[in-house]
Amino acid sequence: MQRLREALVLVFLAICSKAVNSMPFWWPSDTADAPGYCLSWRLAVEANNIRAWRTVPTQCSRHVEAYMIAGQYQRDLTLIVDTISTYVDTITLSDDGLDAWILDVDDTCISNLFYYRGKRYGCEPFDPLGFRAWALQGGCPAIPDVLRLFNKLVERGFKVFLVTGRDEETLGQATIQNLENQGFLGYQRLILRSGTYKGLSAITYKSEIRKQLVGEGYRIWGNVGDQWSDVQGDYAGNRTFKLPNPMYFIP
Amino acid sequence: MQRLREALVLVFLAICSKAVNSMPFWWPSDTADAPGYCLSWRLAVEANNIRAWRTVPTQCSRHVEAYMIAGQYQRDLTLIVDTISTYVDTITLSDDGLDAWILDVDDTCISNLFYYRGKRYGCEPFDPLGFRAWALQGGCPAIPDVLRLFNKLVERGFKVFLVTGRDEETLGQATIQNLENQGFLGYQRLILRSGTYKGLSAITYKSEIRKQLVGEGYRIWGNVGDQWSDVQGDYAGNRTFKLPNPMYFIP
Repeated sequence: MQRLREALVLVFLAICSKAVNSMPFWWPSDTADAPGYCLSWRLAVEANNIRAWRTVPTQCSRHVEAYMIAGQYQRDLTLIVDTISTYVDTITLSDDGLDAWILDVDDTCISNLFYYRGKRYGCEPFDPLGFRAWALQGGCPAIPDVLRLFNKLVERGFKVFLVTGRDEETLGQATIQNLENQGFLGYQRLILRSGTYKGLSAITYKSEIRKQLVGEGYRIWGNVGDQWSDVQGDYAGNRTFKLPNPMYFIP
Repeated sequence: MQRLREALVLVFLAICSKAVNSMPFWWPSDTADAPGYCLSWRLAVEANNIRAWRTVPTQCSRHVEAYMIAGQYQRDLTLIVDTISTYVDTITLSDDGLDAWILDVDDTCISNLFYYRGKRYGCEPFDPLGFRAWALQGGCPAIPDVLRLFNKLVERGFKVFLVTGRDEETLGQATIQNLENQGFLGYQRLILRSGTYKGLSAITYKSEIRKQLVGEGYRIWGNVGDQWSDVQGDYAGNRTFKLPNPMYFIP
């Protein structure tokens, strides 16, 4: 009896150990219904194969939640920012002050994760009024890896342009203060969407802004955003980087 | 004694069930050292953030192996091809015979997975002579999802161009026969790399080929490849699709 109990305890421990070792630690136990599909969906989104999607597929709600909050999103960000940082180190700046870098704002510099938690991480359709109310609070936290990149760029002498689709008139002041509160100090210009660009797609609007910067003589060494529409189009930059965002799509 | 044994068997089964349900079924048990990092690395590769890499990081050897052979690569392919197929259904073809589609060959139409198994799924650097010997055998199996797409495109009346960086002189005949053996019948043209394009990067060479096709009047509706260099550059196509390939990078 005692020997049997000991043997079974050993089997029990062996199984526990095996299970713990072979599980990705960020994996929630309740997405077993469709983990393969949701991994495929997220990869297809990040590789720009699936476009113009309106909501996260309902069956991927828990997958996206786990991805965003249980560590993998953070690890993905860190690896990309490390990659960017290595690229930055290879650049020799000239002394004409025209070496430029472009960063998107939402979910690039500052995070809307808390807002999207209330929208089931993108399973609910975009809510313009709800998002505006959130953004007006000016309480988006910095994304630490991107703040680290931002500071490095400023210190190295890049002119950093923050380019956002946020409406200048209604969200300008809140955005300026939010960025300042979160430590984004020393950028060259924050460019918000003015009346002229209302109704344009992000690709068209941001291409137009970059064209103007290039027209002013700036060399765009890098361009970082969480949307493909941040890094496609004209004058995209010498190198572009797409940060992960499985919560929403901006055309 | 009997009751204890029964109770322990129930506990055993409960644990097994829990472990099985919470593990992604394709996850190998021996990548627990760095699953998060390897997921990040693969995502960064597929989103074109990490470029010009020469080999798979050694610590990701088992991760990439598991990805390629245990089901997730296959699921990723199927979702992308389903997405492409939905896009194809939206296209109205004209009757001038100039509606074109471009497919890459290696690891798009036909698979080199068996070859790369011998190269530790990309952990060993590219071996031009070894790869040529493999390709000369003409034994690459079709990728079933892409063959399905190919047949749909041909049936719908698209002129399908297979564009590959393979050397025309040495690999032309073997490639033609390999494609035929695997059921790729009815394409418009197989374009291999002729002497004119030797030494050019894939982006430059493939852009040049597409420019010629557009010059002939073709409208490139879609362009599918496993490398970013297949789908970037000039005349890339109305929509481009990047199939997964974490085993090698072609600039």
